[in-house]
Amino acid sequence: MHAYRSHTCAELNKSNVGDTVRLSGWVHRVRDHGGVLFIDLRDHYGITQVIADGDSPVFAELEKVRSEWCIRIDGNVLQRDESLVNPNLPTGEIEVFVRDLEVLGDAGELPLIVFGDQEYPEETRLRYRFLDLRREQMQDNMKLRSDVVMSMRKRMWDAEFREYQTPIITASSPEGARDFLVPSRLHPGKFYALPQAPQQFKQLMMVAGFDKYFQIAPCFRDEDPRADRSPTDFYQLDMEMSFVEQQDVFDTIQPVLRGVFEEFGGGRKVDTNWPQISYKDAALWYGSDKPDLRNPIKMQVVSEHFAGSGFAIFSKLLENEGTEIRAIPAPKGGSRKFCDRMNKFAQQEGLPGMGYIFWRDQGEGMEAAGPLAKNIGPERTEAIRRQLGLHVGDAAFFLGGKPKAFEKVAGRARDVIGEELGLTDKDRFAFAWVVDFPIYEQDGETGKIDFEHNPFSMPQGGMDALNGNPLDVLGYQYDLACNGYEILSGAIRNHKPEIMFKAFELAGYGKEEVEKRFGALVNAFQYGAPPHGGCAAGVDRIVMLLADQENIREVMMFPMNQRAEDLMMDAPSVPDNEQLRELHLRVIPQE
Amino acid sequence: MHAYRSHTCAELNKSNVGDTVRLSGWVHRVRDHGGVLFIDLRDHYGITQVIADGDSPVFAELEKVRSEWCIRIDGNVLQRDESLVNPNLPTGEIEVFVRDLEVLGDAGELPLIVFGDQEYPEETRLRYRFLDLRREQMQDNMKLRSDVVMSMRKRMWDAEFREYQTPIITASSPEGARDFLVPSRLHPGKFYALPQAPQQFKQLMMVAGFDKYFQIAPCFRDEDPRADRSPTDFYQLDMEMSFVEQQDVFDTIQPVLRGVFEEFGGGRKVDTNWPQISYKDAALWYGSDKPDLRNPIKMQVVSEHFAGSGFAIFSKLLENEGTEIRAIPAPKGGSRKFCDRMNKFAQQEGLPGMGYIFWRDQGEGMEAAGPLAKNIGPERTEAIRRQLGLHVGDAAFFLGGKPKAFEKVAGRARDVIGEELGLTDKDRFAFAWVVDFPIYEQDGETGKIDFEHNPFSMPQGGMDALNGNPLDVLGYQYDLACNGYEILSGAIRNHKPEIMFKAFELAGYGKEEVEKRFGALVNAFQYGAPPHGGCAAGVDRIVMLLADQENIREVMMFPMNQRAEDLMMDAPSVPDNEQLRELHLRVIPQE
Repeated sequence: MHAYRSHTCAELNKSNVGDTVRLSGWVHRVRDHGGVLFIDLRDHYGITQVIADGDSPVFAELEKVRSEWCIRIDGNVLQRDESLVNPNLPTGEIEVFVRDLEVLGDAGELPLIVFGDQEYPEETRLRYRFLDLRREQMQDNMKLRSDVVMSMRKRMWDAEFREYQTPIITASSPEGARDFLVPSRLHPGKFYALPQAPQQFKQLMMVAGFDKYFQIAPCFRDEDPRADRSPTDFYQLDMEMSFVEQQDVFDTIQPVLRGVFEEFGGGRKVDTNWPQISYKDAALWYGSDKPDLRNPIKMQVVSEHFAGSGFAIFSKLLENEGTEIRAIPAPKGGSRKFCDRMNKFAQQEGLPGMGYIFWRDQGEGMEAAGPLAKNIGPERTEAIRRQLGLHVGDAAFFLGGKPKAFEKVAGRARDVIGEELGLTDKDRFAFAWVVDFPIYEQDGETGKIDFEHNPFSMPQGGMDALNGNPLDVLGYQYDLACNGYEILSGAIRNHKPEIMFKAFELAGYGKEEVEKRFGALVNAFQYGAPPHGGCAAGVDRIVMLLADQENIREVMMFPMNQRAEDLMMDAPSVPDNEQLRELHLRVIPQE
Repeated sequence: MHAYRSHTCAELNKSNVGDTVRLSGWVHRVRDHGGVLFIDLRDHYGITQVIADGDSPVFAELEKVRSEWCIRIDGNVLQRDESLVNPNLPTGEIEVFVRDLEVLGDAGELPLIVFGDQEYPEETRLRYRFLDLRREQMQDNMKLRSDVVMSMRKRMWDAEFREYQTPIITASSPEGARDFLVPSRLHPGKFYALPQAPQQFKQLMMVAGFDKYFQIAPCFRDEDPRADRSPTDFYQLDMEMSFVEQQDVFDTIQPVLRGVFEEFGGGRKVDTNWPQISYKDAALWYGSDKPDLRNPIKMQVVSEHFAGSGFAIFSKLLENEGTEIRAIPAPKGGSRKFCDRMNKFAQQEGLPGMGYIFWRDQGEGMEAAGPLAKNIGPERTEAIRRQLGLHVGDAAFFLGGKPKAFEKVAGRARDVIGEELGLTDKDRFAFAWVVDFPIYEQDGETGKIDFEHNPFSMPQGGMDALNGNPLDVLGYQYDLACNGYEILSGAIRNHKPEIMFKAFELAGYGKEEVEKRFGALVNAFQYGAPPHGGCAAGVDRIVMLLADQENIREVMMFPMNQRAEDLMMDAPSVPDNEQLRELHLRVIPQE
């Protein structure tokens, strides 16, 4: 017989009754029924009930085992009495009578109980991650993550992509976030950097003729931690393809991701229609560049109804250039209580408030209520109601000013309204392509023009467009939103050196600086570069959505804490002097 | 029609004759046959011949294109004249008459020609890697690598392993090699480290109950470069399993690797018998802990034939303790010329020389030639011949002294003999498990005992063995050699804290130091650790063998050069002062 097990703890059933078996696993739960011991023995695969009484030669030793000891037992498979069958357990029809016992690894007092659902502070969970990970939910999350990643790989291979690995110790690549640096021992004073993404390498592979590349790629950004972001390393499904336009990328990656969500969504509805929404429309309709389309609310411009109206705040406001009044329709939100709550929400978010109208039936037909309705009169009110398609029992909220100033609050208000009124369908994955991002943005204070996203995207209209107003230039650049999270970002790249230099020039970067910062790419583009584009999808975030978790650390095996520390491994830590000497570095003491 | 291509450059054949098609790719070769242009258009998939003459509306523009320009053409598929069919090309039956042309990316003067087999210095190849990678051999190597890695993954999944990702930014793990350090911005003066291997994490996963783990894992060692080793990052097929003994690990990984070699070996023979050879026997028989079993030569101890013999050098030597005489049989090596050459080889390797006997037939029956035979006389000579199973036309070489002093040279001599005599079968992959490594070694000068390999292996015989002579303790620790390369290393781990502390104590490490250096593991082992073991196979090296390359950089997409520099990306480089300030670091100027 094998030294440790003849079966896993999920395998035995009625057909094994009478067999002599060997099992290994952890003591999940012990129950002592006065002279009869019941132990749930757990391994990665399942749980088997093992029992012993005074007839067992190892009864006395078995009485000593405690929760989470790792043990090996030999025994006979017994059929359970009909009344004791556990239909929820694959092994629920049998139990194993213990004849021999070996303690493989005992356990001290547990800082964290594996059995049951007790909550622990995150610091405890991370410090004792090896215990935390024994819990069923964590085992499930990690298995899910592993399965999702493999499914992504298979689907990319089926789409005729190959996976190629790109360097992890490489050059600094100024892409927006902060690099992690790695001092070089062989070249004192010089540093490598960990890649924020394999962006430049995948573009170089396209120049090298690889046509279709993907990678489940580790990416590194020295960022301040957030719940949905790892403070150090994270994974992307990174892909790039040559001789493509934007729609080709969509047509390639959409079936891959849709397939993954359908396979692992646990029965939740996966939208098959993924609308393409311009960045501008997304801001207007949803107040976000990652709209949550599970929420049916779509905002609208209603300026005309307020221009010259009796509601002085809005009508005056509209006299300023670039201002608008927008409405958030709120079906079923037609109560003063709800409307007041939302008004308060806007105030908490830093706005003066949010005007509203709601429609009710007091027995004498429909009535529009709220101070706003009175100010603008019944005709304008009715025109608004018709435009928004609202009815008795519904409400609408209004925000005015320069859109940039209130769009984000409007977006959050839309979220809350959808949530509170039960309009947002929780059992669903809804996707939206956000397209036509502007290439440039202007700093409100300095007036300086800079790249809005990253500088690698091809401007729509090419060189001609760059000769016009930079702020009007849109890029072949896109994001994919799922349930309000950005889960993918990509672009058709700018592969023409002359357009690239011009694009940088508009943002104030001279030729020399471009050559210094993106030398490899710029150089490569001089030797027959193909048109190419691609995207990168956030693996951790997708798994988080599929696992229905709100914290990315629930779907990572050994995450850092919020302060970018690994308490279990003691990282970061103070290096030996010898290590610093070899690297020719000195730490500057803090004041 | 698609903006860039209706077909790839490998797709068109006789069935497409008459079709209007669109192709994109690189100008591989241009031939101008006076008024008729022939262009081999190349993409990732293949080559299609496109032609034009004065009838083409774009003939004049087409005449301007040069090698490695990236172009898009439209044209009609024509059947080639029978006499012009190229049977070596999938598209060899057709050609495309060009009607429209778009230059997608032109190219300057090429620092490296893609077409043909011209050799370039490695520095040129790496600086212009995006051109070097366009060459057929490099495309093939990268595709092979990608396919091998995916095949490994599939085979591990089929063996019911799941892939889990472990942290890349983590703690220093003193495992023998030098760590790459990463300064922490949030914790000034503290550093992360890049993992030399996911060793501790995979063991922690076993403690967490994951049972079967694998990962195509990036590993980082700050090592001085070598041809078969990357100076920065490299990949391992890393695996670990719980509740196993050594043979279980072999039974699991052997079919995976054998399958990979059979799938990608290009018809070369893949041995099905993988013998298990003890570390001690490997040293004796092959003079190496990574024996090349394609070479049939097996060395033997022949001390008895020289003890008290007339060959004074050896007979005196054998009076000293710990000395031995070993023979390298050399079938078909029976010529003075060859024997002298090998003697010289030994001298070049720093030994005084290598005695030899060879057997010839001068028409009067077998004769043993060489000075050694004369010194020891015909009886001893014949006894040696019989022991080694040699015949007329064969030779034997002899080395004496303390084995440690000559074993390695003996091993290299065996390689050269096998090679020069054509005994080593080049068309074959031969594997050997090397087992029973000693846990400890003794420093020849200081007499200090230290770990021979890594400190995580379970000693054979457990605690009892550690109470005896440390130098006699063998570990459940193993390597796998293929054709003379170490391609895998592993062990059954020491999962018992008390045995672990004892093992470290013998090597001079106190409890406190062990807790400091391996705190996470030692701590985890207190909470019900299962017996576990595994291994890690070198992905780059396996691909190198399969691709029949001798330099690891031939199977890496973007390798560093021998000085750990990436000339294309300019890494490492001098950081901004601002970056150093944020990290609270100062570079110490070199003297």
